[in-house]
Amino acid sequence: MSHFEIELAALKERLLLMASRAEAAVNNAIKALVERDDDLARRVKEEDDAIDQLEQQVDAACIALLAKAPLATQLRLITSAMKISRDLERVGDEATTIARRSLELSQEPQLKAYVDIPRMATMAMAMLNDALGAFVTGDTARARSVIPRDKEVDQLNKQLYRELASFMIEKPTTITRCLNLMAISKALERIADHAKNVAEDAVFLYEARDIRHLGGGEH
Amino acid sequence: MSHFEIELAALKERLLLMASRAEAAVNNAIKALVERDDDLARRVKEEDDAIDQLEQQVDAACIALLAKAPLATQLRLITSAMKISRDLERVGDEATTIARRSLELSQEPQLKAYVDIPRMATMAMAMLNDALGAFVTGDTARARSVIPRDKEVDQLNKQLYRELASFMIEKPTTITRCLNLMAISKALERIADHAKNVAEDAVFLYEARDIRHLGGGEH
Repeated sequence: MSHFEIELAALKERLLLMASRAEAAVNNAIKALVERDDDLARRVKEEDDAIDQLEQQVDAACIALLAKAPLATQLRLITSAMKISRDLERVGDEATTIARRSLELSQEPQLKAYVDIPRMATMAMAMLNDALGAFVTGDTARARSVIPRDKEVDQLNKQLYRELASFMIEKPTTITRCLNLMAISKALERIADHAKNVAEDAVFLYEARDIRHLGGGEH
Repeated sequence: MSHFEIELAALKERLLLMASRAEAAVNNAIKALVERDDDLARRVKEEDDAIDQLEQQVDAACIALLAKAPLATQLRLITSAMKISRDLERVGDEATTIARRSLELSQEPQLKAYVDIPRMATMAMAMLNDALGAFVTGDTARARSVIPRDKEVDQLNKQLYRELASFMIEKPTTITRCLNLMAISKALERIADHAKNVAEDAVFLYEARDIRHLGGGEH
């Protein structure tokens, strides 16, 4: 491997490190919610700071590499890495939102057992995992499999939104808690969006085809 | 000017075109809300599609230019342009959210005169305008002036959220409308976030200094 290729490999490594930190932040935020663990919720914020630092390191590495990249495919890899690092940084932000809302929720009695939210979290995290795996390995079929799953998470979010809105109308004493749960559901929906972005970047990288904004996505 | 410099200038032009489309989408979404103009709300979605197309054109132009950029400052300009185009694309998405929520709101009687939301919109759009102006002209003082204003918009959003949450508890018949207004307020808060990102990119571009994540931003 040339020196340049070694640096590119190191860039991928750093992105994967960022991804595992972002994944841990989301998992801990959901765990803090379900187990009403306030200390864990507070630690998510610290994890988010570490992710923010990594984004800056990835960007600096990308700019340094861009100046030396001899091939178009390498340019695409580097610019994809910059985009993915931004998405992962936002995943960390969403984890912080979940943690903050969990802290508010733990100050009141639990509304009901959480079923939909852990399910959405599992789906969103699997999407992120597949998208990053596809980015690293070049398995574009795996990347493409991520994209339709975003709609499923959207549907779950909408369904939960409607349920919570009805619940609020029936029992106005639950409004604060329902609003917090809506915000958490929305955060998970956004994490799935970021996973979809990463998957699209992976397809673009390996097939040099821009598949964003096909098929009229919803907002 | 060299051929390369002409292409760079064209890239900046295209970004500005994207910005003016995004700005028009937000302004029309707010106008549709305030004037209860459903046709206008529906047209915002079409504008968003045009913005999505522009993002793809900007990205393709950036990748073509990266392969030919001889200087580090040019590499930074091109990578900044890619980031800014993503932010503008998201501004278009937020405009669509505002338009969709406005359509839902216009199906029920108006809750009260809208004061805070047009004010937040004006602030967010001024931030975006200053950030893009700074990106084009290199006026980093102007870019820096954008950053603290994000906190003001955050505060307005939080204040409106609290007011609407209290209102829902007092008058549960208003819940659906309050939820729609909360979503619009949040969309404006995110537009201000994107403007802050663009401002940070402008500072980074001209001062080669990464000012993201300083001062412990809130999430």
